[in-house]
Amino acid sequence: MNGAESLVKTFLAGGVDVCFANPGTSEMHFVAALDTHPDMRCVLSLFEGGVTGAADGYHRMSGRPAATLLHLAPGFGNGYANVHNARKGHSAMINVVGEHADYHLKYDAPLKGDIEGVTRGVSHWLRTSADALSVAQDGAEAIRAARARNGQIATLVLPANTAWEEAEAPATPLPPVRLHRPRPDQIAAAAKALRAPGAALFVGGLALHGELARVAGRIAAQTGCRLMADLFVPRIERGEGAVAIECLHYPVLENVEILRDVRHMVLLGAGEPVAFFAYPDKPSTPTPADCRILDLCGPDMDIAWTLEALVEATGASGAAPATLPLDLPDLPTGPIDAVKVGQVMAALMPEGAIVANEAITSGHPLAKATRTARRHDWLTNPGGAIGAALPLAVGAAVACPDRRVIAPTGDGSAMYTLQSLWTMARERLDVLVIVFANRGYQILRGELANVGVNSVGRNAERMFNVEDPTLDWVALAAGHGVEAARVTDAEGFAEAFRRGVGEPGPYLIEVVL
Amino acid sequence: MNGAESLVKTFLAGGVDVCFANPGTSEMHFVAALDTHPDMRCVLSLFEGGVTGAADGYHRMSGRPAATLLHLAPGFGNGYANVHNARKGHSAMINVVGEHADYHLKYDAPLKGDIEGVTRGVSHWLRTSADALSVAQDGAEAIRAARARNGQIATLVLPANTAWEEAEAPATPLPPVRLHRPRPDQIAAAAKALRAPGAALFVGGLALHGELARVAGRIAAQTGCRLMADLFVPRIERGEGAVAIECLHYPVLENVEILRDVRHMVLLGAGEPVAFFAYPDKPSTPTPADCRILDLCGPDMDIAWTLEALVEATGASGAAPATLPLDLPDLPTGPIDAVKVGQVMAALMPEGAIVANEAITSGHPLAKATRTARRHDWLTNPGGAIGAALPLAVGAAVACPDRRVIAPTGDGSAMYTLQSLWTMARERLDVLVIVFANRGYQILRGELANVGVNSVGRNAERMFNVEDPTLDWVALAAGHGVEAARVTDAEGFAEAFRRGVGEPGPYLIEVVL
Repeated sequence: MNGAESLVKTFLAGGVDVCFANPGTSEMHFVAALDTHPDMRCVLSLFEGGVTGAADGYHRMSGRPAATLLHLAPGFGNGYANVHNARKGHSAMINVVGEHADYHLKYDAPLKGDIEGVTRGVSHWLRTSADALSVAQDGAEAIRAARARNGQIATLVLPANTAWEEAEAPATPLPPVRLHRPRPDQIAAAAKALRAPGAALFVGGLALHGELARVAGRIAAQTGCRLMADLFVPRIERGEGAVAIECLHYPVLENVEILRDVRHMVLLGAGEPVAFFAYPDKPSTPTPADCRILDLCGPDMDIAWTLEALVEATGASGAAPATLPLDLPDLPTGPIDAVKVGQVMAALMPEGAIVANEAITSGHPLAKATRTARRHDWLTNPGGAIGAALPLAVGAAVACPDRRVIAPTGDGSAMYTLQSLWTMARERLDVLVIVFANRGYQILRGELANVGVNSVGRNAERMFNVEDPTLDWVALAAGHGVEAARVTDAEGFAEAFRRGVGEPGPYLIEVVL
Repeated sequence: MNGAESLVKTFLAGGVDVCFANPGTSEMHFVAALDTHPDMRCVLSLFEGGVTGAADGYHRMSGRPAATLLHLAPGFGNGYANVHNARKGHSAMINVVGEHADYHLKYDAPLKGDIEGVTRGVSHWLRTSADALSVAQDGAEAIRAARARNGQIATLVLPANTAWEEAEAPATPLPPVRLHRPRPDQIAAAAKALRAPGAALFVGGLALHGELARVAGRIAAQTGCRLMADLFVPRIERGEGAVAIECLHYPVLENVEILRDVRHMVLLGAGEPVAFFAYPDKPSTPTPADCRILDLCGPDMDIAWTLEALVEATGASGAAPATLPLDLPDLPTGPIDAVKVGQVMAALMPEGAIVANEAITSGHPLAKATRTARRHDWLTNPGGAIGAALPLAVGAAVACPDRRVIAPTGDGSAMYTLQSLWTMARERLDVLVIVFANRGYQILRGELANVGVNSVGRNAERMFNVEDPTLDWVALAAGHGVEAARVTDAEGFAEAFRRGVGEPGPYLIEVVL
């Protein structure tokens, strides 16, 4: 077998059996190796941002790393933004980046570039394979690195000749890296802090969904503390029966208000809350100056163990977490707006839906309206680089073929990675994309004011609006092979939404705001 | 004035008056400063690959650097591939990348990333402004760096507070950096080599068009050497009256054949010819082993001076360069193919057209057919990262509003930066996009065979073809506000081509192959 085959076999042995790909010439032997291993599911994207964002969504919903296949430094560059987002969300991902054959690197071929340079800043683990014999072991180490610390970015650079030259055997999976845990005195201090007045347990990662969210909810119920989380989390469970977790907002001054009475904050699986951006005369962090922050368990530490230790320390094992009720709104009527979109979603979202949300200025009413809908998972963008929603939806749908994926997104954001629509059609993924056509980077109008500029002139206006021409999302969807509808009223949106979550395959709704 | 205003004024004073932009919150003060300086032309792209590729095209056709405005590390990442291409083509470009306010960087905000890491490998010059007082001088140095060595990538990272804090004054333009020149003995050696049997003058950069190409042609006419160039050059003049320059092909074995009899190769404004990729059992360079390569003047050296010195050393000042004749084909009929597309283009391209060519598998027949058309400039992709043609066309059209821009591109390539269609519509650019809808990455089928793999199985096939669903380029164009037509025969293509180069504004033709 050659190096590429040894790597594919190593991946499969290590439980990595999905590969999101946009290959080029330097990856041809890897492609050939995939050919002889049909148990590896290959999903093509027509742009690399769709590749890396899909791997992120896949990990968030499956808990398992996918491989990506990228072509040289520019190919990684195209995927960089969604690797950044995945990194901020602690997703596991194994990037395989094809490089020129090592003996060709002394020449200045057109595609020669600094692969390690462009990958290093967003990779927790980075290695260039030295020869074909090393590829399998490098692959096994990449898997271990990706799985370490609750999810990391591992990048393996594969010179073409290491793929085509002779190798020996695949590598056996390596034992996982053990997670760090807090010390007993830190657990005791946290348990004490959570019982004090003005206490908040600020959770992230695995504590936001499933059984561990319930454990966090028991601690909050027992100690009387608030259970809180950031706004931009990789995955949070919401809707009927989900543990009630209070999420922060986007504007830093609103968060200052929300956190005004917090005196003790225990961080568990999350970092300290931070303003998305700095603004003149506004604080970088929303927490009160006299709040004591106890950094108990970082996002890369043993969240499950820490939660159980806290349950024991607080005597919370018998407590019942506060959960969200089912409270469905009536279907709205009349001209559409973001609030009504949220109401329709809340009323009609099926049990078990996955929402990949990148509606920026429309996001808050959506989140508010759907909080007490049927049980669902809610994915946001912890890295803030727009263009995440469509690729995330692809990855989530590949991970969970039995669940409906809904991707509400601003039009500006969706344009960054619209090529993912094609992948949804190709793979017949059950994804409903909702594009909020406000026809501009509305968020920037607010941000201009936030940084103290109060007038918008011609040059600025021409950089904020996406009118002239108007994007036609029904046509853009059709161009990618996806059916679509344009709606302007709530009744039309409800009808299109029913179609979108009722029929197999992808569908897109352009909501004209 | 604040730092952002001092920078905009510095740019304008330094002759930088076009800004291709995709800004975010961290660049809001720069946007506000642009607002008060309407003499800076701002061109919005909906994706950063469109920003950087446009700056590249703008420089190729104007000889002047444009500024780009990009948002943090992921924004630069999205633009990385076309910065790579610009760098390989020796284009000048000034990237302004907004960063968080410096005091905010100690927190792990969602968009905090390693900007210097992602930019360093593709930037010749890189600086993060220390404070508002430094911004203007940093800007002046960025302009000088971008203009140095025939064109470089200069990247200026602007922490948000350096933009909004108080500055003093714009900086005055700095004197240009002097170009290196060959020594007299090298000129003499080159002059001698060019007179020997089997000599070739291998030119690049400014020697490929305009007066300097004529100078190169005189040297070739006088010495009897071949005048040659790479296939992937940033800009070459072709058609009636243009100097006849022999270009290499894509397949390395064809180039081995083309260069078989070359015994002396003088490099002038170009590097040594290199295979695009390495393949098992094929050479990395096409030049014969016994060919003596004289590296006279690198692409970053004084090409004009060197050419004049060679004219003098060879006594070529009175020689007449061999030029291309006007030889227009008849209009073809019947089912369309790449050869017929080339014939129609050759027959109907207006004088002064600019062709931004990224037709990959269809590129060779196109280049062949149009070589003796009316005079035109031909732009290719010296960096090989696909997704260049549409952005290049935008930049070329902004630089040359009185000329027609034609962008033939593969469908696979066009998908990477299709958002540039919107910018063409927004700016009413006279661009005709020709999409070769072969519905797949055809080049990769050949490349798989090139690396020694002769069967294509299901996983490979699913990564090569872009059928199921078929991309509908007429719909994709309409979605971006661009009119379009789909053609399947030569008559229909000729009619659509006439429409495309005859009416103002952008137009797209989908050629179904």
